[in-house]
Amino acid sequence: MDRERNNIELDILITGGTLITMSEDMVIIEDPAVGIKDGKILFVEKREGQISEYRAKEILDASESIVMPGLINTHTHSPMVCFRGLADDLPLMEWLNDHIFPAELKYVNEDMVYNGSLLAIAEMILSGTTTFCDTYFYESSVAQAAVDSGMRAVPARGFMDSPTPGNPDPFRHTEIAGQFIERWADATPLISPALICHTPLTCSAETLRNIKNIARNSKLPFIIHLSETKDEVKIIEERYGLTPVSYLHSLGVLDDLTIAVHCVCLNGKDIDILADHGVKVSHNPESNMKLASGVAPIPKLLEKGVTVGLGTDGCASNNDLDMFMEMDTAAGIHKVAALDPTVMDAKTVLKMATSGGAKVLGLEDRIGSIEAGKCADIIILDMKKPHLTPLYNCYSQIVYSAEGHDVSTAIIDGKIVMKERHLLCMDIFDIMERVRKTADVISDSR
Amino acid sequence: MDRERNNIELDILITGGTLITMSEDMVIIEDPAVGIKDGKILFVEKREGQISEYRAKEILDASESIVMPGLINTHTHSPMVCFRGLADDLPLMEWLNDHIFPAELKYVNEDMVYNGSLLAIAEMILSGTTTFCDTYFYESSVAQAAVDSGMRAVPARGFMDSPTPGNPDPFRHTEIAGQFIERWADATPLISPALICHTPLTCSAETLRNIKNIARNSKLPFIIHLSETKDEVKIIEERYGLTPVSYLHSLGVLDDLTIAVHCVCLNGKDIDILADHGVKVSHNPESNMKLASGVAPIPKLLEKGVTVGLGTDGCASNNDLDMFMEMDTAAGIHKVAALDPTVMDAKTVLKMATSGGAKVLGLEDRIGSIEAGKCADIIILDMKKPHLTPLYNCYSQIVYSAEGHDVSTAIIDGKIVMKERHLLCMDIFDIMERVRKTADVISDSR
Repeated sequence: MDRERNNIELDILITGGTLITMSEDMVIIEDPAVGIKDGKILFVEKREGQISEYRAKEILDASESIVMPGLINTHTHSPMVCFRGLADDLPLMEWLNDHIFPAELKYVNEDMVYNGSLLAIAEMILSGTTTFCDTYFYESSVAQAAVDSGMRAVPARGFMDSPTPGNPDPFRHTEIAGQFIERWADATPLISPALICHTPLTCSAETLRNIKNIARNSKLPFIIHLSETKDEVKIIEERYGLTPVSYLHSLGVLDDLTIAVHCVCLNGKDIDILADHGVKVSHNPESNMKLASGVAPIPKLLEKGVTVGLGTDGCASNNDLDMFMEMDTAAGIHKVAALDPTVMDAKTVLKMATSGGAKVLGLEDRIGSIEAGKCADIIILDMKKPHLTPLYNCYSQIVYSAEGHDVSTAIIDGKIVMKERHLLCMDIFDIMERVRKTADVISDSR
Repeated sequence: MDRERNNIELDILITGGTLITMSEDMVIIEDPAVGIKDGKILFVEKREGQISEYRAKEILDASESIVMPGLINTHTHSPMVCFRGLADDLPLMEWLNDHIFPAELKYVNEDMVYNGSLLAIAEMILSGTTTFCDTYFYESSVAQAAVDSGMRAVPARGFMDSPTPGNPDPFRHTEIAGQFIERWADATPLISPALICHTPLTCSAETLRNIKNIARNSKLPFIIHLSETKDEVKIIEERYGLTPVSYLHSLGVLDDLTIAVHCVCLNGKDIDILADHGVKVSHNPESNMKLASGVAPIPKLLEKGVTVGLGTDGCASNNDLDMFMEMDTAAGIHKVAALDPTVMDAKTVLKMATSGGAKVLGLEDRIGSIEAGKCADIIILDMKKPHLTPLYNCYSQIVYSAEGHDVSTAIIDGKIVMKERHLLCMDIFDIMERVRKTADVISDSR
């Protein structure tokens, strides 16, 4: 221990257990000491000497626990928790056109988005997610919910060429994008705004180029749902004679600040284009399974050097926001799709959910691993449980055996937002009650 | 309420919340009253009048909860929890030959099996399973662990034509099977013994016919791992010129007291044979994914009227025993394999995990649904949680959103084995410590 540093009073000291850093060299430290001050990780070391030699306002004992980076959900529509279980097991178009779209048109408003986001944030924190990338209507209300609960977020203002809730006039894109960026770009370290074009189907070439340009000029991520279904690919090919990826490439919107979500239906050339242009991919296996879209060729993308993060997608197509379950599913689906158990190992999956996710969102300098200088986004997993006993391999245990509820404590930006399973950042019973009331109205009208 | 019955003092009354009976007609009762006496369900009704009008030694308030049948795990190797995470992400043969088999030969003994089973039972109860079908070495120690913890079990004594731990002489099959049946057939209502031949690869035709005959004469389930991998099918076809299913059919061992586990690699004729002979199928999707075996054609089997139950398989190939996660995975994998979101809906999955599982094990008269006269194997799910809010559809919520830890209370054979997440049936910290010690020895020797 650096005796000099001993004079600094830490905000939080985490000590004990096993530290999974998820640094580039995948350092694991037994009985570590992690010092946190002013939102940042001040030091990460093997603890030497007594705990009493450290000065800290709060000491978290992580004995018999795993300390690891908070998980990063690279794609969700958080307010859709309000539609969790509203309609399932239906053909995609029936699900969308007869259930989800009508419910959205009728019930989505700023209050619903704000309350739904808070509920989603609660669920995410309780299952170990400390950053989420989101897009929905009234996205500023999502961002506000993140700010109010101390959650880190990449809220993406959405664009499409038809009226949407909160956006009756689809031809004010430039103005709206500008306002969103102005409001959130420097508002708080917790919020990193982004822009999203819904899909190549629902946005014109002009819209795609325009929004990408605005994002590019502000150095913000440009996001798009891309090649999610065979139908999408078919329609785009009919319209433009190109695959969705080739089409976007032809418009010049693919670069290393572009996040392509889903990427289920890719051919070899698509994969090369994404790799060559440094496009990041958000992989949402549970949603792709539940909506029967297909299995994204993630092992091939990784082989070509594409950066991939994990996402849950919205609750209506999952139906939860638990990244631990998403990790387990990601490992399993690629093994069985390739009939090869070596194709997606636990370490690779955990990287996608942490350091990979950070790179996807362009936040790798700040989050995704536990290293000195980074933001203190850290979770502690309680391993004293039957389903986590015995422990041979931390990576296996995290990906294949742990579940969201094993997260005992969560820290975001150096603040404890959940401690021993108690959310400290909101009145969750009040939020649940508010969302239940919205759901009652939806139920009664059906 | 039947006023006559009012004079009976119940052991347990469950009241409040929503009752999912899983009866043939899928009755759901809001604010039910379930009376339990002497291990049996005495009545199931909509509560009328005050709770004080019932007489019960213990009243369980299920307000804001779902009351449902305990889940039935139709296939596991419970002591393999001791190898959880020991080796993962490896080619099947390397995993088996270099890791699992050597570890089993070296470390499996009666104590390991007993302690491992208790740990597995703890994990199962904590995640809502109230009956498990098991096979491993020293199976009587598994059965004893079930008896000692009040768990319902179908322990299957295993046979193969080579020496195994606890069974150095593989040619005393008849004698050993007889002893196992004698010991367990009438020992306790919690235990229903069965016999299992390991695979068509590891058992001769003589062994298969012999064990099936013994099981048939005693009216016990005969179990076999069947058509799990392409390699198995290939080898059996080379040996006998028949698929594994056709081969077993030719031996006359397939009937409605046969449980075929896995059934991943089936052709159309195989499916017809299984259907025509009333063979039951145990579906283990997470294991089939993790070992990259393939996707069992469950929708086709169900279409042909085959009874299917769910199973987790052993912990070394899963790596947990959580049937809620197994349900979610089962729904997802078939949707994406068929590219059809309607092919495996939540109700169908929940049936596989409850009433279907009971039929697979031949226990449908006793368990699998909440109906008067059946054994009281019941779980209560606490729905007052962010990830279970709001609630539109109970079946969707159970299959797609609930997780094992949402089970607050579990009752087996009319006894409360877990209450408010506290296991009442064993000293779990002692068990975890014992298994950790075994794991330390295994780790140190590697």
